[in-house]
Amino acid sequence: MNTFGHLFRVTTFGESHGPAIGCVIDGCPPGLAIAPEEFAHDLARRATGTSRHTSQRHETDEVEILSGVYEGITTGTPIALLIRNTDARSKDYTRIAEQFRPGHADYTYWQKYGLRDPRGGGRSSARETTMRVAAGVIAKKWLMQRHGILVRGYVAQIGDVVPRNGGPRGHDWSAVESNPFFWPDAAQVPELETYMDALRKSGDSVGARLVAVADGVPPGWGEPIYGKLDGELAAAMMSINAVKGVEIGTGFASVSQKGSEHRDQMTRDGFQSNHAGGVLGGISSGQQIVVSVAFKPTSSLRLPVDGVDIHGDVAEIITTGRHDPCVGLRATPICEAMLALVLMDQALRHRAQCGDVGEVSPRIPGETKPDAKR
Amino acid sequence: MNTFGHLFRVTTFGESHGPAIGCVIDGCPPGLAIAPEEFAHDLARRATGTSRHTSQRHETDEVEILSGVYEGITTGTPIALLIRNTDARSKDYTRIAEQFRPGHADYTYWQKYGLRDPRGGGRSSARETTMRVAAGVIAKKWLMQRHGILVRGYVAQIGDVVPRNGGPRGHDWSAVESNPFFWPDAAQVPELETYMDALRKSGDSVGARLVAVADGVPPGWGEPIYGKLDGELAAAMMSINAVKGVEIGTGFASVSQKGSEHRDQMTRDGFQSNHAGGVLGGISSGQQIVVSVAFKPTSSLRLPVDGVDIHGDVAEIITTGRHDPCVGLRATPICEAMLALVLMDQALRHRAQCGDVGEVSPRIPGETKPDAKR
Amino acid sequence: MNTFGHLFRVTTFGESHGPAIGCVIDGCPPGLAIAPEEFAHDLARRATGTSRHTSQRHETDEVEILSGVYEGITTGTPIALLIRNTDARSKDYTRIAEQFRPGHADYTYWQKYGLRDPRGGGRSSARETTMRVAAGVIAKKWLMQRHGILVRGYVAQIGDVVPRNGGPRGHDWSAVESNPFFWPDAAQVPELETYMDALRKSGDSVGARLVAVADGVPPGWGEPIYGKLDGELAAAMMSINAVKGVEIGTGFASVSQKGSEHRDQMTRDGFQSNHAGGVLGGISSGQQIVVSVAFKPTSSLRLPVDGVDIHGDVAEIITTGRHDPCVGLRATPICEAMLALVLMDQALRHRAQCGDVGEVSPRIPGETKPDAKR
Amino acid sequence: MNTFGHLFRVTTFGESHGPAIGCVIDGCPPGLAIAPEEFAHDLARRATGTSRHTSQRHETDEVEILSGVYEGITTGTPIALLIRNTDARSKDYTRIAEQFRPGHADYTYWQKYGLRDPRGGGRSSARETTMRVAAGVIAKKWLMQRHGILVRGYVAQIGDVVPRNGGPRGHDWSAVESNPFFWPDAAQVPELETYMDALRKSGDSVGARLVAVADGVPPGWGEPIYGKLDGELAAAMMSINAVKGVEIGTGFASVSQKGSEHRDQMTRDGFQSNHAGGVLGGISSGQQIVVSVAFKPTSSLRLPVDGVDIHGDVAEIITTGRHDPCVGLRATPICEAMLALVLMDQALRHRAQCGDVGEVSPRIPGETKPDAKR
Repeated sequence: MNTFGHLFRVTTFGESHGPAIGCVIDGCPPGLAIAPEEFAHDLARRATGTSRHTSQRHETDEVEILSGVYEGITTGTPIALLIRNTDARSKDYTRIAEQFRPGHADYTYWQKYGLRDPRGGGRSSARETTMRVAAGVIAKKWLMQRHGILVRGYVAQIGDVVPRNGGPRGHDWSAVESNPFFWPDAAQVPELETYMDALRKSGDSVGARLVAVADGVPPGWGEPIYGKLDGELAAAMMSINAVKGVEIGTGFASVSQKGSEHRDQMTRDGFQSNHAGGVLGGISSGQQIVVSVAFKPTSSLRLPVDGVDIHGDVAEIITTGRHDPCVGLRATPICEAMLALVLMDQALRHRAQCGDVGEVSPRIPGETKPDAKR
Repeated sequence: MNTFGHLFRVTTFGESHGPAIGCVIDGCPPGLAIAPEEFAHDLARRATGTSRHTSQRHETDEVEILSGVYEGITTGTPIALLIRNTDARSKDYTRIAEQFRPGHADYTYWQKYGLRDPRGGGRSSARETTMRVAAGVIAKKWLMQRHGILVRGYVAQIGDVVPRNGGPRGHDWSAVESNPFFWPDAAQVPELETYMDALRKSGDSVGARLVAVADGVPPGWGEPIYGKLDGELAAAMMSINAVKGVEIGTGFASVSQKGSEHRDQMTRDGFQSNHAGGVLGGISSGQQIVVSVAFKPTSSLRLPVDGVDIHGDVAEIITTGRHDPCVGLRATPICEAMLALVLMDQALRHRAQCGDVGEVSPRIPGETKPDAKR
Repeated sequence: MNTFGHLFRVTTFGESHGPAIGCVIDGCPPGLAIAPEEFAHDLARRATGTSRHTSQRHETDEVEILSGVYEGITTGTPIALLIRNTDARSKDYTRIAEQFRPGHADYTYWQKYGLRDPRGGGRSSARETTMRVAAGVIAKKWLMQRHGILVRGYVAQIGDVVPRNGGPRGHDWSAVESNPFFWPDAAQVPELETYMDALRKSGDSVGARLVAVADGVPPGWGEPIYGKLDGELAAAMMSINAVKGVEIGTGFASVSQKGSEHRDQMTRDGFQSNHAGGVLGGISSGQQIVVSVAFKPTSSLRLPVDGVDIHGDVAEIITTGRHDPCVGLRATPICEAMLALVLMDQALRHRAQCGDVGEVSPRIPGETKPDAKR
Repeated sequence: MNTFGHLFRVTTFGESHGPAIGCVIDGCPPGLAIAPEEFAHDLARRATGTSRHTSQRHETDEVEILSGVYEGITTGTPIALLIRNTDARSKDYTRIAEQFRPGHADYTYWQKYGLRDPRGGGRSSARETTMRVAAGVIAKKWLMQRHGILVRGYVAQIGDVVPRNGGPRGHDWSAVESNPFFWPDAAQVPELETYMDALRKSGDSVGARLVAVADGVPPGWGEPIYGKLDGELAAAMMSINAVKGVEIGTGFASVSQKGSEHRDQMTRDGFQSNHAGGVLGGISSGQQIVVSVAFKPTSSLRLPVDGVDIHGDVAEIITTGRHDPCVGLRATPICEAMLALVLMDQALRHRAQCGDVGEVSPRIPGETKPDAKR
């Protein structure tokens, strides 16, 4: 199960400190222009070592396109992308291989497989998400070119800190991309710098909440009952390392709402609110898709803790490697990528069953239904 | 996409007011005893009309086993279950068919498919969840017989009300099953009765939060990277009607936590806390699996609201049918069923790749690794 | 694995002598008119008891549509079809349950599952193919309405007898449908009557070869590498009871051909031959799709044979039930159905990835490429 | 659809003359020892340029293991294999890109995708099968280690020539591996050398029939109804380039058989014949699995032929590249690999549903049924 998606299928492979990571993207529509350098922007947004607030591992993340693209155009055959690991450390993993770091997958991989690759977390490392971002670049491009869909994200909470301006306003997202925290309120950035510096010095970590949104999604995407758009978004986000919660629209706050408040009224001018987060009955409504994601504080701390090893002995666990004090800080492009991958897959599935957009949907109530052949 | 699961596959069909609903369960292990009457208990827990606090639709929900069971034993071939709809109303749906009820799937189904079955919500009705509960009965039984796993759930919040006792304690869940709210604190029940009566009279609705837990899950279940146990739980829960959020373990509260607090320390006596909710790196840790689910307030209200119809005209929408003031109240067996279905599927997938439980996992650190053939 | 197809998915259930057989068809495009009586024609072509040359089991095969169709139109939700078994015999299966009939699945089901439903072959009975035919009716209708595709079949060999006229000529298939053997050469029918009468009296059985063809399939359908059109046709046909071989186009005879003979020359008027059987590189070429299928002689004979039972004892096996002396005789609609199901699924998959027909393909070499958005 | 298998999943990528070909193998059981040099033997058996009777392309086919193996042992995470193309020719493909070679996928890829990679056939080249063979090496090893299964193949017909000795006898397959034709009758090899030399000089090509067999497969593998062992073998073989037919056991010859001849009698000593080819009802019977595969003569000939190009103009097509006069000659390891991949996948699926071998099957009739927990 290292494949994501049904028709636009992304299979990733590779370990954190193995020779390379990569992915195979199958089912991509033919005719899309794609060049190796187009991956750079989003990969840099996800990369470590770009500020003092993230892990200091330095990877060049150069993407080689091995297949599926001829003279710069996708051919419809599988697109293989490869990134060599260049800053993998060849240190001695003997001791680490026998310990279970608390809050990590060490123990569970050992239980499942009977052995594990201990180098930098192996397969369970966040390094795998690099390929999600790379695949997301292709999905984002197709969604924009074909449907005018814009996928974006920002950090909506770090520890207890929330944006004082409530998040990006309309199409002005400039603040988000101009600070290392993907923070929508520029005025708070100095304060966050101080906060993160103190946290890093303490050797501890903190959680974060991210919001990913998609504008321009036509109504009608999503497959009831078990392939719902929101259901697949939930799976997509929860599959990201360190995620512990997912909300669509108003999310958990809707528990306290009354129905008369939550139901988004429709008028001839469209919906009057968006508590639903753009999804009704598992199908896109044409409103903005809004997904909120909770990232736990990373468990890789310099603060020692007692644990056990594979021999059953008590061991003091110190995680000395290069780690992020707040893993959520680099997760914005990852959440965007997963949102884009879900939309891309649903777009293809929708036109498989219902024909291409324009045949059936989107429709304006009151206008003549197109004489669709389906 | 009306199929759930990869190896233990449940395909449901049927509309709310069509002739019948049903499901086909494929991939069930052979040799499991199953009788029609075993479905009754959980179906009754989910049923409408069992108290004044739920919809007054009265369905007998009698399950007919059409295939896959011979002389009371599963044969390994697909198990088809059928329930005839007996209280479907043959009223005039002409007006309803042209209106979009706010907060419902009417508009999105119309956009996706170009037409829809308007009778009682058609396919998007919560009636579909009946078959999830039926399939869940089989999964629960196998999980208990084969692995001693116990799957349970309760309501953890209604509107702003939370259990004063914090939830069921240990194995004493008696309160939960002795009131119509699946509420773990018996002392609060009279207060909830009053609350729900007032709500029902007001014609409004309210949301709810549910918690589903599984005890006894062995370590090692779950498939990284895109088939993670928590990822599939998120999809499973989000696929239930009205769900807007899913958490594993500490969930969104982990955003405010420090890593030193969140990471669950291991000792020779086991884990010292369970912020992870029983899942690390997408694989079960052997701790209790804890999933929290947010249900929105139903949008089917007696309170009128202006909306639009398929002609683009403004229309006053009044939902006059039989509806639940709090859909979450009947959702406990549904959440349990989805949890059981995910576990069942992962159990089969785990033994496919890694061999049967006992070959590799669970293991006690320090004990000799079994000489597993895999 | 009782589901066939990726996007147009047919899940069948039911045992030969259980209460009912049925199927769930998921992924059907919305907007297709379908009525219960439309299934009758093909089901009658497949039915037993329609001539003295087939099994004398009499089933009414009345199809009930349980879901997915509203006011006679498919809604895009799963279509469940149900047929009650009416001529299932409640005889004593005790002895049969302990014996392994040679050439049947009795032994292998027992090995796989540890138990089996012995009533009339249970799940391994050809009765399951009834639902394939029913699902095929829907696929055939959509393929004809949407693409003008015509799917047909005939019997091309019974024992050593082959049609003297070489098969149906062009669009004159009248002979095929006017005799109980689906035989394309009307002049041979009396001879075949005599042959089959003698065979039936002898208590023995004989094999058959069938050909299924599809006219009007546009070029471009089929997914390389592992979802090739011919690969899926091979799987589809081999999944029918009693099938032991599948050929596309010239098939095994191409082994003896030279390349200069086999390669189908293209001219401005199109292909000059069809050794390929309408498939090149796994993708339809626009020529007639031609599939040839070998059916073994049924092993259910009145002629006794020594075998073993589950106790390891030697037992004389006599199959006294109602059986076909040549199972291939009723298989024409089954082969057609499987061909239609494969095409239907590939049609949806093709437009998922490459857009709807007309956007990219079919194209006439030399004509301007449509400015396709994909 | 560049993925083969359900649980043991092989995704291949790469074009004939692109930078590399590769595959990702997902779902492999952990704990299997695998080294890069283990791929060499089977890759050499499939390689071009090893005798004058095959294409003179010279590829080193060095396999790099990119992931999924730690210290020589599979970890259960995806295994990525990479082979760089070293003898890809950077010639001018402009003219070829506009022509449709008869009998090739040029025309159908153009129709499907609107464009194609013309370099050496691109994705439709037999070079893709290299990765099938590589993946098959892993499957073969696991099948042998875990179950003692031996997978082998030979050429059973070249043009009209058949082995005079009828094929390999019992376990003496030495002749097959000691000549460039995988021919079981050593005495005929000089005659075949002459035959092939003449064919090559004539510029023409010829077809071949191959047989792949598996010994030691336990009874019980295979999933009725649509995941039958023989159905998946048919799909697997038909997915190989140039294959036009597949038979199981007696295959098309069973059409002319009587049931009393075809049905394989069981005695206390086992089956007395194997017309079924080791599969009954889609499930393995414990006998030898026998698959026969028809390869067409390659259409890449030096003999010119008139064709059309994308402009609709008539063009003389001459295929000047390096090609095989009989593609079937190199296909033995490919057929073996596909047989091994199907068996491997079915093995995992079987133990998912029915528990590990030894729990239920294989069983000896008359012996006490194991008290299986399933």
